[in-house]
Amino acid sequence: MPSTTQSERVDALQFDPLSGAIPGRAPTSRHLADVGASFADEQACSRLLAENPLIYQVTQVEDHDGEGQIHYGIGIIMPGKVGREYFLTKGHLHAWRPAAEVYIGLRGRGMMLLEDEHTGECRAVPLEANSTVYVPGHTAHRTVNVGDEPLVYWGILSSAAGHDYGTVGERNFRKVIVEQDGEPVVLDREEFLRELEA
Amino acid sequence: MPSTTQSERVDALQFDPLSGAIPGRAPTSRHLADVGASFADEQACSRLLAENPLIYQVTQVEDHDGEGQIHYGIGIIMPGKVGREYFLTKGHLHAWRPAAEVYIGLRGRGMMLLEDEHTGECRAVPLEANSTVYVPGHTAHRTVNVGDEPLVYWGILSSAAGHDYGTVGERNFRKVIVEQDGEPVVLDREEFLRELEA
Repeated sequence: MPSTTQSERVDALQFDPLSGAIPGRAPTSRHLADVGASFADEQACSRLLAENPLIYQVTQVEDHDGEGQIHYGIGIIMPGKVGREYFLTKGHLHAWRPAAEVYIGLRGRGMMLLEDEHTGECRAVPLEANSTVYVPGHTAHRTVNVGDEPLVYWGILSSAAGHDYGTVGERNFRKVIVEQDGEPVVLDREEFLRELEA
Repeated sequence: MPSTTQSERVDALQFDPLSGAIPGRAPTSRHLADVGASFADEQACSRLLAENPLIYQVTQVEDHDGEGQIHYGIGIIMPGKVGREYFLTKGHLHAWRPAAEVYIGLRGRGMMLLEDEHTGECRAVPLEANSTVYVPGHTAHRTVNVGDEPLVYWGILSSAAGHDYGTVGERNFRKVIVEQDGEPVVLDREEFLRELEA
């Protein structure tokens, strides 16, 4: 049951930029068992499933729907890796494809993968404390924590946007962000999969 | 000339939550001479016009227009008062009336006046560091700095929203936020104007 219903709308909320919590709103939690298929290294994923760590949480504020309305929410991604690949969100397209989304970083050091659904071009852009990322329409987007503390950020978008996780779930992103010599690097997924098999 | 044109779109920006600056983007500045008519106390305003203090700045990021796109920007209101009335923004309705706006406080202690354009009901809600305010459609909104440091905040809304300053300029808000015994209080404008005349 959602912690707040349409009839309990409030105009003002407080939030904790360190924990990502919005008092009075329940987060949705994603553990490794929920998002394991997003990671490239199946063996490393299987090993880590025994402890099934928390990967990320999202607290959505979706009190208002209809023309001109806005949804917003805080994401928090834990620090960590599955093999060499940094903890990440499943990623999604918007059901209403033209819908853009603005991300505002509050804490930590992350990157976003932005993949154009038409051209397949996949770019990585930084999302860090005190920075913003503009996700255009028609763009699959995934957030990745490449630092050693939680990555906390706002996402704000049209209430009409909706979420399409299925398309990303079927084909995943063309790039991965993995640790190499202690630093994050962006690799083609296929290239990284070949490395894993070698 | 805008500091960034449509052809120089960037996906990621940095910002300073203390100063409200977005490097590479030029703020619009409003001094008392620009917004004096918003304040209730004409005599206090006239006296302060000699020094014409900076009241607020806004740095808009409006790189993307069209269906599903979003505009966003940082506002910063200086601490101070005109007579007993705290420094404020002119306030506006959206030209596209249904458009909502989400405010995210980064620094300081403020309040927003939200006035329903149909009923005239005018409410004050807090906007402070680490808090949000949801401005529904059809609602004139003004931000007020009731603290002793700059008030810094993001505003995020549909690119289709537009700004209507004229309607607010003609009739102003029905409430004022003024200092009384060292604390902000919300009064009916008419009541405050009678106090000033007494």
